[in-house]
Amino acid sequence: MRLSEVAGKVGLTFSGHDLDISAVNTLALAGPAELAPLLNRKHLPELAHSQAGAVLCEEKFASEGRTCLLSKNVKLDWARVVALFARPQGCLSGVSPQAFVHPEARLAPNVTVYPFAFVGARATLGEGTTLFPGVYVGEDCVLGRDCILYPNSVLLAATVLGDRTIVHAGAVLGSDGYGYAQSPGGHVKVPQVGVVSVGSDVEIGANTTIDRAALDATRIGDGTKIDNLVQIAHNVQIGRHCLLIAQVGIAGSAKLGNGVVMAGQAALRDNISLGDGVQVAGQSGVGVDLPAGAMVGGSPAMDIATYLKMSLTLPKLPDLARRVRRLEKALEERQDETKENSHE
Amino acid sequence: MRLSEVAGKVGLTFSGHDLDISAVNTLALAGPAELAPLLNRKHLPELAHSQAGAVLCEEKFASEGRTCLLSKNVKLDWARVVALFARPQGCLSGVSPQAFVHPEARLAPNVTVYPFAFVGARATLGEGTTLFPGVYVGEDCVLGRDCILYPNSVLLAATVLGDRTIVHAGAVLGSDGYGYAQSPGGHVKVPQVGVVSVGSDVEIGANTTIDRAALDATRIGDGTKIDNLVQIAHNVQIGRHCLLIAQVGIAGSAKLGNGVVMAGQAALRDNISLGDGVQVAGQSGVGVDLPAGAMVGGSPAMDIATYLKMSLTLPKLPDLARRVRRLEKALEERQDETKENSHE
Amino acid sequence: MRLSEVAGKVGLTFSGHDLDISAVNTLALAGPAELAPLLNRKHLPELAHSQAGAVLCEEKFASEGRTCLLSKNVKLDWARVVALFARPQGCLSGVSPQAFVHPEARLAPNVTVYPFAFVGARATLGEGTTLFPGVYVGEDCVLGRDCILYPNSVLLAATVLGDRTIVHAGAVLGSDGYGYAQSPGGHVKVPQVGVVSVGSDVEIGANTTIDRAALDATRIGDGTKIDNLVQIAHNVQIGRHCLLIAQVGIAGSAKLGNGVVMAGQAALRDNISLGDGVQVAGQSGVGVDLPAGAMVGGSPAMDIATYLKMSLTLPKLPDLARRVRRLEKALEERQDETKENSHE
Repeated sequence: MRLSEVAGKVGLTFSGHDLDISAVNTLALAGPAELAPLLNRKHLPELAHSQAGAVLCEEKFASEGRTCLLSKNVKLDWARVVALFARPQGCLSGVSPQAFVHPEARLAPNVTVYPFAFVGARATLGEGTTLFPGVYVGEDCVLGRDCILYPNSVLLAATVLGDRTIVHAGAVLGSDGYGYAQSPGGHVKVPQVGVVSVGSDVEIGANTTIDRAALDATRIGDGTKIDNLVQIAHNVQIGRHCLLIAQVGIAGSAKLGNGVVMAGQAALRDNISLGDGVQVAGQSGVGVDLPAGAMVGGSPAMDIATYLKMSLTLPKLPDLARRVRRLEKALEERQDETKENSHE
Repeated sequence: MRLSEVAGKVGLTFSGHDLDISAVNTLALAGPAELAPLLNRKHLPELAHSQAGAVLCEEKFASEGRTCLLSKNVKLDWARVVALFARPQGCLSGVSPQAFVHPEARLAPNVTVYPFAFVGARATLGEGTTLFPGVYVGEDCVLGRDCILYPNSVLLAATVLGDRTIVHAGAVLGSDGYGYAQSPGGHVKVPQVGVVSVGSDVEIGANTTIDRAALDATRIGDGTKIDNLVQIAHNVQIGRHCLLIAQVGIAGSAKLGNGVVMAGQAALRDNISLGDGVQVAGQSGVGVDLPAGAMVGGSPAMDIATYLKMSLTLPKLPDLARRVRRLEKALEERQDETKENSHE
Repeated sequence: MRLSEVAGKVGLTFSGHDLDISAVNTLALAGPAELAPLLNRKHLPELAHSQAGAVLCEEKFASEGRTCLLSKNVKLDWARVVALFARPQGCLSGVSPQAFVHPEARLAPNVTVYPFAFVGARATLGEGTTLFPGVYVGEDCVLGRDCILYPNSVLLAATVLGDRTIVHAGAVLGSDGYGYAQSPGGHVKVPQVGVVSVGSDVEIGANTTIDRAALDATRIGDGTKIDNLVQIAHNVQIGRHCLLIAQVGIAGSAKLGNGVVMAGQAALRDNISLGDGVQVAGQSGVGVDLPAGAMVGGSPAMDIATYLKMSLTLPKLPDLARRVRRLEKALEERQDETKENSHE
């Protein structure tokens, strides 16, 4: 693709000469037919030595001898540029005769179903949706348009996906929530009869698990992006445009507003509510409701500013204990002195 | 189903009028043909406005105008009521010609094997057991009656399951334990030749992993319920009726008694023992043996009462450090004063 | 196999009588035709009562009445002995007609492809490599010799494996990295066009996830062993002979030298570097670069010696706070006294 064509498609201008761009690459690795991004100042030294044929960068970093695609928001424009060169996964199209599609399933046009994918009774697949090998779509599932279900992902009965939602390999949606009643004979399973309902433009990471509700639905809002190995328990309600990083765990019936960000390995207790825009640091554990905009860290979580100060003090804790002991001794000695003085 | 029939099946009586119950639902969402539970007092306001045709509740919450199924243990009776209405997952029965069943495998009557499930040599499936698509049952596995293996769950060679045990989607039982010997050339794999042995009425969560023993067996006792994304290493011994919540990690050869509860993301060190009824708080890390009934929290874990007090003090740690500094200064000043005074 | 044959194959001598060895087992469980290891002194009491026909042990633990295979490095020799008795997983060989192999894929001789495995266009499998049921090998993947891909493991497009690398069940390599650009309309996906490149003699645990790079490659060095449920984000670079224990999480673009060890549930922040031989304690969180040989613990991580001392002090924190309060009071009282004295 000519650089001028790239520029036109993403609505940018360029300085320097037009050329053929065969691929995108990093500044360090790109060759003369490749386009690389200057994503932040940190990479300026790499820019100096880069063999890249063209560079996507802010205008202020453009130089005479270099062909530059000029951007005011490099990260966002880079996402659009890469999309022009990215090849979608997969090597087949159409519905494979080696797939299992239940006669009562309904498939829209232009659906791709790979060998060894399974589509249950009354499931519906929207136009352009792709099921990779080993995907299981249970009975009564409803999938929107242009969804991608990567290999071995599983949607149990009656799971709902909006449009353009991506489920990565091995993710499981709609497994039974973890609900038991106690009896003298042991834990009695409370059958889970709710569903998982996922919005549009959602991404669900590899081997992530989202349990179906006990009753009603576990819900994931539009535009929310979930990383790998995340656990979302039954009846959890997640708003729009949230970011849940890898290995996060969210316990039953927790509620997240819109734009909530949880960093890796953070966890939420059951039945709590997080307001819009709450940010939770990595490995934190939140056990109480948080108002909109709150930023917390630690396990149990506290205000992020307090947490950062606390973290700096923590390694000094043994020293602090020693100093308190020393103070006590000093005071005891002075008290002894005082006593002695008063006896004189 | 008539309410009178529901009542009869679970051994309860009801107040008000008999009616047709089409489904179970929450108090907030149930309609006039649905039955909803009052699971705790917190939901009393919802009860007031509920459109539910009937409510399962304690007798003291029953009122004149409402049809109530009367219970002394609402959570337990609710589990039984829901079981009457729950539809099992799946839309096929019998052994699919699109499954692979090794000629030396032995299948009891009424077994269901979905397309793309695999049953290895000499594996045996008990009566009423179901293998969903993508399930792998390795050679020499022994599965009891009425087990359910959800899509893409994996049982490697010689795994044993009791009766009525449920393996959720993507769970892996019998993968190699993580065992290496050091050599000058690098880590040398110690081949893992033990198995995984799981009791009856066990539930294993989605994408949970349970490694086979180095020798002998990794064991999970009857009635133990394991949530999603839990890691159980080789040679671990877990007792009966334990509860392991999501993302828990248990290192090699750890031993858990009966009725142990570990909350989300908690972890156990290798080779330690937990007595019966031990409770471990979320995100805790236990590195030492614990006696029966111990309740612990924190990483490293401490007695739960100490942990809760410690957690309240933690955010005040920077302030505490400042106060110790101030005390030291005050004491220094007084010492200087004393010295000055003594020089006068 | 005769004990003399076992001894010959692993290059050891034995004391006592030659005998037939049918299997390996633990000291506690081994019978008269089995060989058991004395892996450490802790097991000496079991040795006294063991029915084992022969024991692998250091010469100093050999006794008159017992047949002993004599070793200077029991753990390493045990790995070799067990390898003689271990049966590989699986019950089929050759390429199943129930597998899907793309006509443009290239399979070396002696490859095994089980039913319901999928091999994409232009993928190449080295000699002796085995794909279990439900394995997905995407287009353009390159697999070396004697690799084993256990059931339902997934290699997305263009993933590279060296020789003798093992991918356990349910692991996912090459899923999209978690990369988004912010826009007024929400998070915009940055298409991930890099790959995952894994060396030789690597082991990747069950349900572990390794994301493909944004550009370039996520790399895992030769001999590195990764446990179950580990998350490795895009662009991470891992050296040779590292050990990553279960549920570890490594954020984007982090770099690990050779021989790094991370214990269970530990985590690394994005874009940091760990030198050769760094050791990270379980549940720790590392947020800064660490030099070669560093040993750290805690979240956030600190020097391990400091961490251990800090951990011992932590449960005493509430007591420490009380003592500081007491000191303050004592000092206040003395100041009041002093004032009173000065007013006298």
